[in-house]
Amino acid sequence: MKSFSDFSMVSHIKNLFDICRSITGNGARKTLNYFEKFHPELERIKFASFTKVFDWEIPLEWNIKDSYIEHIETGQQFAKFSDSNLHIVSYSEPINTIMDLEELKKHIHTLEDQPKWIPYVTSYYRKQWGFCLSEEAKQKLPKGNYKVVVDSKLEKGFLDLSHCILEGKLKKEIFFSTYICHPSMANNELSGPVVTSQLLDYIKNKYPNPNFSYRFVFLPETIGSISYLSRYEDELLSNVISGFNVTCVGDDRSYSHVKSPYGNTLADKALEAGLSGLKNRKSYSFLERGSDERQYCSPGINLPLCTFCRSKFGEYPEYHTSADNLDVVNEKGLLGSFQVLKNIVDAFEICLFPKVLVKGEPQLGKRNLYPNLSKKQNSRRDSQSRMDIIAFCNGKNSIFEICNLTKLPLSAVIDELEILIKAGLVVENFNNQSTNGLI
Amino acid sequence: MKSFSDFSMVSHIKNLFDICRSITGNGARKTLNYFEKFHPELERIKFASFTKVFDWEIPLEWNIKDSYIEHIETGQQFAKFSDSNLHIVSYSEPINTIMDLEELKKHIHTLEDQPKWIPYVTSYYRKQWGFCLSEEAKQKLPKGNYKVVVDSKLEKGFLDLSHCILEGKLKKEIFFSTYICHPSMANNELSGPVVTSQLLDYIKNKYPNPNFSYRFVFLPETIGSISYLSRYEDELLSNVISGFNVTCVGDDRSYSHVKSPYGNTLADKALEAGLSGLKNRKSYSFLERGSDERQYCSPGINLPLCTFCRSKFGEYPEYHTSADNLDVVNEKGLLGSFQVLKNIVDAFEICLFPKVLVKGEPQLGKRNLYPNLSKKQNSRRDSQSRMDIIAFCNGKNSIFEICNLTKLPLSAVIDELEILIKAGLVVENFNNQSTNGLI
Amino acid sequence: MKSFSDFSMVSHIKNLFDICRSITGNGARKTLNYFEKFHPELERIKFASFTKVFDWEIPLEWNIKDSYIEHIETGQQFAKFSDSNLHIVSYSEPINTIMDLEELKKHIHTLEDQPKWIPYVTSYYRKQWGFCLSEEAKQKLPKGNYKVVVDSKLEKGFLDLSHCILEGKLKKEIFFSTYICHPSMANNELSGPVVTSQLLDYIKNKYPNPNFSYRFVFLPETIGSISYLSRYEDELLSNVISGFNVTCVGDDRSYSHVKSPYGNTLADKALEAGLSGLKNRKSYSFLERGSDERQYCSPGINLPLCTFCRSKFGEYPEYHTSADNLDVVNEKGLLGSFQVLKNIVDAFEICLFPKVLVKGEPQLGKRNLYPNLSKKQNSRRDSQSRMDIIAFCNGKNSIFEICNLTKLPLSAVIDELEILIKAGLVVENFNNQSTNGLI
Repeated sequence: MKSFSDFSMVSHIKNLFDICRSITGNGARKTLNYFEKFHPELERIKFASFTKVFDWEIPLEWNIKDSYIEHIETGQQFAKFSDSNLHIVSYSEPINTIMDLEELKKHIHTLEDQPKWIPYVTSYYRKQWGFCLSEEAKQKLPKGNYKVVVDSKLEKGFLDLSHCILEGKLKKEIFFSTYICHPSMANNELSGPVVTSQLLDYIKNKYPNPNFSYRFVFLPETIGSISYLSRYEDELLSNVISGFNVTCVGDDRSYSHVKSPYGNTLADKALEAGLSGLKNRKSYSFLERGSDERQYCSPGINLPLCTFCRSKFGEYPEYHTSADNLDVVNEKGLLGSFQVLKNIVDAFEICLFPKVLVKGEPQLGKRNLYPNLSKKQNSRRDSQSRMDIIAFCNGKNSIFEICNLTKLPLSAVIDELEILIKAGLVVENFNNQSTNGLI
Repeated sequence: MKSFSDFSMVSHIKNLFDICRSITGNGARKTLNYFEKFHPELERIKFASFTKVFDWEIPLEWNIKDSYIEHIETGQQFAKFSDSNLHIVSYSEPINTIMDLEELKKHIHTLEDQPKWIPYVTSYYRKQWGFCLSEEAKQKLPKGNYKVVVDSKLEKGFLDLSHCILEGKLKKEIFFSTYICHPSMANNELSGPVVTSQLLDYIKNKYPNPNFSYRFVFLPETIGSISYLSRYEDELLSNVISGFNVTCVGDDRSYSHVKSPYGNTLADKALEAGLSGLKNRKSYSFLERGSDERQYCSPGINLPLCTFCRSKFGEYPEYHTSADNLDVVNEKGLLGSFQVLKNIVDAFEICLFPKVLVKGEPQLGKRNLYPNLSKKQNSRRDSQSRMDIIAFCNGKNSIFEICNLTKLPLSAVIDELEILIKAGLVVENFNNQSTNGLI
Repeated sequence: MKSFSDFSMVSHIKNLFDICRSITGNGARKTLNYFEKFHPELERIKFASFTKVFDWEIPLEWNIKDSYIEHIETGQQFAKFSDSNLHIVSYSEPINTIMDLEELKKHIHTLEDQPKWIPYVTSYYRKQWGFCLSEEAKQKLPKGNYKVVVDSKLEKGFLDLSHCILEGKLKKEIFFSTYICHPSMANNELSGPVVTSQLLDYIKNKYPNPNFSYRFVFLPETIGSISYLSRYEDELLSNVISGFNVTCVGDDRSYSHVKSPYGNTLADKALEAGLSGLKNRKSYSFLERGSDERQYCSPGINLPLCTFCRSKFGEYPEYHTSADNLDVVNEKGLLGSFQVLKNIVDAFEICLFPKVLVKGEPQLGKRNLYPNLSKKQNSRRDSQSRMDIIAFCNGKNSIFEICNLTKLPLSAVIDELEILIKAGLVVENFNNQSTNGLI
């Protein structure tokens, strides 16, 4: 069978785009099926409706066959589910009735500032129904009575999620979380699971026997991460040394780091290093959070986790509208995101706490790692990065801190450390660090 | 009997303005009487002349009946004590003699840069006498001989101060200190004790059984705080978790925070939070100190205390001159200051170390604390402040740190925490903090 | 006998300028002899060729009698060692042969951007030979064959260095290191040992029985400091509380501080304080290192040391060229450097951790340390520095931190502390600090 990375990431997004996902139901399930097909490691976890998860309760399962509004006089149909699943408020209860336009309008949501686009609206926890239209379409609705049809079901069922752990030599885990609950939107939905799946593929191939363990979870946002935490809290808190929530990683306008509450976890340092040297990088405080970092970093949990985006959710114009379509994402943007996460994984695997073994500076010349002729123009320029890295390899700084201290790109630090480890000059000091309670 | 807050703060300042205060003597005593009349809790403490207090000694008590200079030839009188008690250098020794203008001028102090105003000058610790005039008045003094009269007494007596403790459930104290030793100046003198007295009134009424204990002291500056420290050092050091020196709080030009030596005490964080969101707020390093924080924060004492002003002493033009009169202060300015201190007290009382009880984010919707419909425009806007506060309620951050982290006004944090506490979502974690040695 | 400081520092530089120094050999030895003549305390230490020192090995000893290239056709000689010892690549192996200009040019080094100056080039660890010329001189070399003569020897011998310890009441040491291995260059070579020698003279005279111990070492750069560390590592790590690498201290264009890796050692604070208030002061991160701080601060050693320069190596145009001659250095520049180091030594000697003995502010008036008359213009201005210093003398801040906190020049802090110590107000708290593990 072909593996996930045998196809372009854009092609995966196209394959998944039309599915009507929500936090429960067959759309989310089909999406999980898609990833599980490529990753047999993924295990499905189910939470039955009404299950208590921390302060929350799993809602009824929602499924929808069709929905539309039909102008009685002319028979014209509008806001057809079959045209766009954004036309229906997610979790709308079933209805089949007739009402006039004035009454109907109370249930219609639009974006006045973006009059050509359909908004994305949900109502998971209060029973109601509603339609979403572009402001322009709403303005054109003819007067009169309408047949209103929502052919949906709210029934006892399950919330589904999929996770896997690639076990490494160490129990300590690097954790990646992404969500699969939004309907037909490309960047704020499908880019996250697709890049995460590509990363899972990469680790399996590159590191069949990794040093660290790697945990991946694909779940519905908020209620999904709360459910997952409620079941796996103890092992997450024991094992995770760095976590990344991956979302909105498909455009190529910028790179964003949404920091943990205090911005000082190993994950924050890792992502800061991963973005080192990239143009248009932005960092946001936890006050500008908005995705599953809200749960993972909540005061009672406090996992060392931050969120990685290209253009951050809420910061790009197409966010949560029908315009977040296949035009917003592209292979270059997706690959840029993958590369950042790949470098972080490589960094963990090559040497988390590098320690130089010699006292004083090592003599690079005798190892052919250094120019032997010192003169003004070349004096140490060629080997400056190498020597800068060595200068901070005290076994206490993580590779990410070394990257941030030396202001080098993370990939350069990885390349240099590979050379230095091969030359026997640097070794991993992780065990001493972890016993010091540093991580 | 009417309480202190039954009158405007400006009216109290007017009642007290004409009294000739100094660090000892009947003027200070009358001023203390005035506040004790409203606050029977206040206890008078007396230090006899020549008592050793740390490195200092209580000076003789100074009282003055009259003083003036009289031009012999014309009988004209100048620099009359009866016109303004600023005309006499505080602690001038008695004299009754005749001298010519040249000799007299050696004893006359003026402000060349502010030629219409009389300066405020003191000489507590060296025996001398002197008169203060406006530069313009000095220029107009006719030539010839003058009769110089200072009808003052320097005798063994007492330095007086008043203090009280409102006992709370906890022995830990919030401490307010203000001074009562300057003669007829409005902002740099009377605003401090009047706002402090208003705060004392507020706490007595609002919190008859407070959580924390509250200590108030009205004393002469420098020698008074040194005397107070010398007697109460042990209990202050054991109990005070946050102290505020209150002075120059009557104008409405700005808000000032004079930081403790390292700017990192709970008091500093509290005042920073108390000023959050106010316009024209300024903070000053300890290098710009000048009031009783000099004693309370001295290296051998090191109380967690900072100073609160509107326009800081030394920073407004009328400071230490006859122009610091009733035109400088106004009810709006005084109320603004009161409000800052009131919010700080409310914050201590509502929850010093708030801790959210649920794991993950609480479901606000089921408690009617959250909008149930999520769409782009309103997504979390309405409840953003509430969620931001919850995000930092880990039981380790004080309410003041939460205010500073969320960049919300302190009053908003208080209001939100009140709602969250009522909803059973947040509790006080003070006991665990104090045992951790955090305060 | 006359002492070192009986002569101008420029005159010492002149005396030493012509010697052809390298990391081994008679030039370095003569230079050490010169300093030892003035300082009998200095002890010579020798490391034999092939001795292992950490990751390195002492190279063969290099000595040179003569070198030149001679145009066969005309008999003209160029790049004559006798004209400038920069003409020969340091550690060039002996050669006596004939080759044509094209072949010769492969062994000629120039500076294209600075065409009038001869570059300084070394090749200690790879056997080769080479000549250095100005670009202009190279351009004028006539075509044809050349006799190439390097009359040098590479033989088993020794690397020499000199060190001394001025023993104080405490074993804790202040450490000064400077290097003596560059040929005829004035600022980047001779300024370092000459200023260091002047400082040694100063300490011997001013503090015959110092509180701290003072260690001085004159050595060849890199291999010398590695050798020294390899022999004295244990006592350096046990005793040195602050170290300074002294180089390029002879011009008067700026003052530079090359920080330790994390910029937070006592040495960094001392040098920051020593430069307080000086114009044109610059600080550089460890990423811009380049001298023996590379060895002393390497991860396996991590001495608390930083580097002090006027214009930093690599930052001034004449660096590592024949233009770094006697025109670059001057007595004013050298004295400025000496003064900085002298102030640092004075600070260590007067009181490293000053602690004020009284509680509250001391009464300066009764000690004639304070104006007795308080009025607006002079209020505490005269004594502000004194009071600011007292405010931070808590026995935990070092004199250098107090200098940095109060933003006063170090010399002013020293003067004020002298007065306060004499007045019995301040004492040394070093012993309590060291047992607290603070240094």
